[in-house]
Amino acid sequence: MKQMESISIRNVQIEDSFWSKWQSLIRETVIPYQWDALNDNIPGAARSHTIENFRIAAGEAEGEFYGMVFQDSDLAKWLEAVSYSLALQRDGHLEKLADEVIDLLERAQNPDGYLNTYFTVKEPNARWTNLRDNHELYCAGHLMEAAVAYYEATGKRKFLEIMCRYADYIASIFGTEPGKIRGYDGHPEIELALVKLYHATGEQKYLSLSKYFVEERGQQPNFFELEAERRGEKQKRAYDYYQAHLPVRQQKTAEGHAVRAVYLFSAMADLAAEYGDHQLFNVCQELWKNVTNKRMYITGAIGSSAFEERFTVDYDLPNERAYAETCASIGLVFWAHRMLQIEADSQYADVIERALYNGILSGISLDGKSYFYVNPLEVWPATANHRHDMSSVKVSRQPWFACACCPPNIARLLLSLGQYIYSKSENNKEVFVHQYVGSQVKFNVAGQYLGITQRTEFPWEGKVNLIISTQVPVEFTLALRVPSWAKTRIIKVNGETVEANDFLSKGYVHIRRSWRDGDRVEIHFPMELQRVRSNPEVRSNAGKVALQRGPVVYCLEEVDNGKNLQDITLPAPAELVAQFEDQLLNGVCVITGWGIRTSLKSISSSDLYRTTEMEKVPVEIKAVPYYTWSNRSPGEMIVWIRES
Amino acid sequence: MKQMESISIRNVQIEDSFWSKWQSLIRETVIPYQWDALNDNIPGAARSHTIENFRIAAGEAEGEFYGMVFQDSDLAKWLEAVSYSLALQRDGHLEKLADEVIDLLERAQNPDGYLNTYFTVKEPNARWTNLRDNHELYCAGHLMEAAVAYYEATGKRKFLEIMCRYADYIASIFGTEPGKIRGYDGHPEIELALVKLYHATGEQKYLSLSKYFVEERGQQPNFFELEAERRGEKQKRAYDYYQAHLPVRQQKTAEGHAVRAVYLFSAMADLAAEYGDHQLFNVCQELWKNVTNKRMYITGAIGSSAFEERFTVDYDLPNERAYAETCASIGLVFWAHRMLQIEADSQYADVIERALYNGILSGISLDGKSYFYVNPLEVWPATANHRHDMSSVKVSRQPWFACACCPPNIARLLLSLGQYIYSKSENNKEVFVHQYVGSQVKFNVAGQYLGITQRTEFPWEGKVNLIISTQVPVEFTLALRVPSWAKTRIIKVNGETVEANDFLSKGYVHIRRSWRDGDRVEIHFPMELQRVRSNPEVRSNAGKVALQRGPVVYCLEEVDNGKNLQDITLPAPAELVAQFEDQLLNGVCVITGWGIRTSLKSISSSDLYRTTEMEKVPVEIKAVPYYTWSNRSPGEMIVWIRES
Repeated sequence: MKQMESISIRNVQIEDSFWSKWQSLIRETVIPYQWDALNDNIPGAARSHTIENFRIAAGEAEGEFYGMVFQDSDLAKWLEAVSYSLALQRDGHLEKLADEVIDLLERAQNPDGYLNTYFTVKEPNARWTNLRDNHELYCAGHLMEAAVAYYEATGKRKFLEIMCRYADYIASIFGTEPGKIRGYDGHPEIELALVKLYHATGEQKYLSLSKYFVEERGQQPNFFELEAERRGEKQKRAYDYYQAHLPVRQQKTAEGHAVRAVYLFSAMADLAAEYGDHQLFNVCQELWKNVTNKRMYITGAIGSSAFEERFTVDYDLPNERAYAETCASIGLVFWAHRMLQIEADSQYADVIERALYNGILSGISLDGKSYFYVNPLEVWPATANHRHDMSSVKVSRQPWFACACCPPNIARLLLSLGQYIYSKSENNKEVFVHQYVGSQVKFNVAGQYLGITQRTEFPWEGKVNLIISTQVPVEFTLALRVPSWAKTRIIKVNGETVEANDFLSKGYVHIRRSWRDGDRVEIHFPMELQRVRSNPEVRSNAGKVALQRGPVVYCLEEVDNGKNLQDITLPAPAELVAQFEDQLLNGVCVITGWGIRTSLKSISSSDLYRTTEMEKVPVEIKAVPYYTWSNRSPGEMIVWIRES
Repeated sequence: MKQMESISIRNVQIEDSFWSKWQSLIRETVIPYQWDALNDNIPGAARSHTIENFRIAAGEAEGEFYGMVFQDSDLAKWLEAVSYSLALQRDGHLEKLADEVIDLLERAQNPDGYLNTYFTVKEPNARWTNLRDNHELYCAGHLMEAAVAYYEATGKRKFLEIMCRYADYIASIFGTEPGKIRGYDGHPEIELALVKLYHATGEQKYLSLSKYFVEERGQQPNFFELEAERRGEKQKRAYDYYQAHLPVRQQKTAEGHAVRAVYLFSAMADLAAEYGDHQLFNVCQELWKNVTNKRMYITGAIGSSAFEERFTVDYDLPNERAYAETCASIGLVFWAHRMLQIEADSQYADVIERALYNGILSGISLDGKSYFYVNPLEVWPATANHRHDMSSVKVSRQPWFACACCPPNIARLLLSLGQYIYSKSENNKEVFVHQYVGSQVKFNVAGQYLGITQRTEFPWEGKVNLIISTQVPVEFTLALRVPSWAKTRIIKVNGETVEANDFLSKGYVHIRRSWRDGDRVEIHFPMELQRVRSNPEVRSNAGKVALQRGPVVYCLEEVDNGKNLQDITLPAPAELVAQFEDQLLNGVCVITGWGIRTSLKSISSSDLYRTTEMEKVPVEIKAVPYYTWSNRSPGEMIVWIRES
């Protein structure tokens, strides 16, 4: 059923003027920084205690468990990031550190395979008594993902085997067979991890267990309700938060906790592909439409409510109260990536691009040492700091969090960026280029070993060169994504223009030919500065435009434009200019031009309401990429600007 | 220090095409309805138990106390409303009912004078142990206000004496003398009530006690902190919620719970007047400026945060998340009324008018049987019903509340409306007309007994006729407020135009002459349809206008204008027409005209973001007075409309 397989990071070397810096930052700064954070060695940061929890569980330290019930997953995501780092570049010191941590994991594992520091240390008799809240299978899932990544990066099996033992134990506990718990985790994650474990080991039972967890979810009688009754809880609650309000095949809108939702949908896409399950894929498509057509910010952020970190209702996308958790955008990328391999439609790659350059990258500072959990599209420090209903909005990135899911999630995503760039379809002899990221890729197609060198100035300029290297001519289709923002495109093969429109299918230009060594594809997607408008149902954006150039969404910051950003309007005909500033924010393309704002001279401080119009004055404006906001003086920020 | 005294409701008979209907509704429907509510005889309404609590306290019924710790105040406010009703129109049945309730109060009173059903029934040993939270003095204050009103309405002293006994007891407990509690209530109210009790009885000690409570507030060491330590509470908290973060004379901005704030400021104005305390009045002026220039909605609503029902920061006036409690606007009227008597400046009367016709009247349905506690300026049912951070916003008025402060507060305000219309200043022989409400007033000025008959079509037409009745000619100044919305005015005395601008002082046109019986003043404030703009610091209203005509603020409702109200824009030159519809909403002036909205045909459901402009189409719009919203089909509503 899958139309293609993504080419894994082992075969992709990123050499990109934009992303290589980020990958180096993650490898050189973020991974060591996060290791310090997990060991509580960052002064002033929220306490983690993650490593110490494992030492206590292994019986090698005294003390109490500290942290969230899912604290183990912070280490898991760090180990996964380390694995991708090692896959990109071997590093003896880092690998030794990882091996030591894996040894610690093994010592913390119970003889039956169970591995969870919270329950081992704090509530040894309470395993599996509250799947709704306690994240046991969630933590297991993250450790499985890390184990698979470590195995694929290093070839070492120890971690994989630890997690297979745990998975085998879990399979003995859960299922529809008599005597088993007919449950599933409150936070989906193990479902997609088990599919990875299946691929790494070939063990069908892991795939079956994933399918069981997904299909069981939301069945009646509701497991969480039965479980709560067993715990003696009287209070009933709604299960949409956990995506357990309905069997997954009956879900039509994305509900509840946004990260949970997209992790679940990722697993559903995996299972649809593995089982050739068209009905399940149709459910995924329906949910995808709901999210991306009605519940997604222009930055690729999702989940507009701080309460329950959740989806709300269609078109409810408030900018200043956006929750827009970094992890949710990352999960959206996971889901999109899986959808894309099943259906070669550029809409999925477009959303990956949108999230990557905007709502995800905003989650980390340019120095890699501070993070946004919440990514609003409009900030007024006065209310962010003083209104209780905006207490989740921070004006500055934080060094760490008590609930530190996002920082290591960014690390693992950015180091595994390589897998999002290319896919190939063996049957159809197609090679897809989804993302324009400078890179070297090597792969087999049509039985031949091939290479592509990609050079580009993305995201600042829309020119891309692809150079084919092959020992013998090979006939295959090169499918090039036309980004949704690209209104025009010029594609040349060896200097000859391709009539792109004639070969366009679902957002990809398909060029079939016999490719020879040194063949050169020149692509130009002119990056016009675009004014983006929202569907009029999005109340928060009525009368407003966002500036976008290529894949990058822009914002106005107080440091460039003064206070009261909402007072600025962009006249419809105003000319805006894009130019690269290499000294600013690690080098960014900025947008400048003239807007209009109220003359402060025309307003008295007692003018709260008045019937006369206020004098307007022209004002120079400067917009910077949204992902760079709050890297200078903290202050106001807006993405959506009034148009006049 | 006071420039004038308001003329009390005993001397003012309202005969008004607008307000008489409301007063009749309160007398005939609301008071009986609320009596049923207090007795739990309204099917489907939140439980009250208020009367039953008094019966239990009096030892005449069995059972547990039920309700808020301040449940007694609901009865107090009802009794106060009943008193005003009796002052306007004797009613033997109602008076008998009130007398019975007062007898019950007396039987519920402890021998030492203490009167509070919560503590008498539930925690008899915990009196005065938690002034911060327990509203004991607050409830006492409301009962004092009711007692004074009942005495003034009926001449009966029993209730007054009950409350004097209680006040005497309170005076023996609180103060700076050794052995007394050096405290004050978490919810200001008794301070203004004691001033009323002083006026009714002439007892200076009540005034002194009020002054003590006000001056003690916020002194260091903070009483609430000491008290919490005595209760063994470890957690510290901020005291701005209680206006106890600073001594009142040091307060410069309105902080914390909005109702508490304006009740306190009312008492501060009272004390400034009574003691001729200019410094304290300056504090009041500074706070007034802060509230009305930076923290007040166009509807006269205050308190923009549901959390703690509080003020937040300057210019933070979100429309959809407005808390804007009905009681807070009522308290603002109390405060404005006191400020006005001290300083004859129309800004105070303007705010009274603004709150009355908009943010207060919106709190009650046209049939008097349902109420808004929260008065947002923009409602989208989807988010009001589904977003947790908007859970206080209701799309429809409710029959009663667990915390039922607002309904009886509206009743007592509307029945005491008469006191807001006129003031007189004996020394300067001035009679002020603050509000244009059809009425008959009788009073003494310059030693002569005088009458004024006021006839007007307010708030729908700006014509007012005043007819003087006097047995002998009397020289005095008639000071007529020029409403802030009146850009022009025509004033004639016996047909001759007065050069209003020459006699204008602080918003009042002063006409001094020897007035004779039958003299006629004709006033015309042409009611133009106005587009009101906000200070650009009010982020929520950037680029938007509100429609106002005379004192009435308008809104668009879904029932008239369809869904997606935020999509509608008003072209700057669009002509709008006002016309009276006597069959609509009990007879209102509506505004109609043409706006522009997006053509739905030009939008695809997958168009969440797009770079092309959307087709616009003209659309007929209809605005109704804000106070009438949600009296037909519940749905969307907006006050602030985008201007194009």
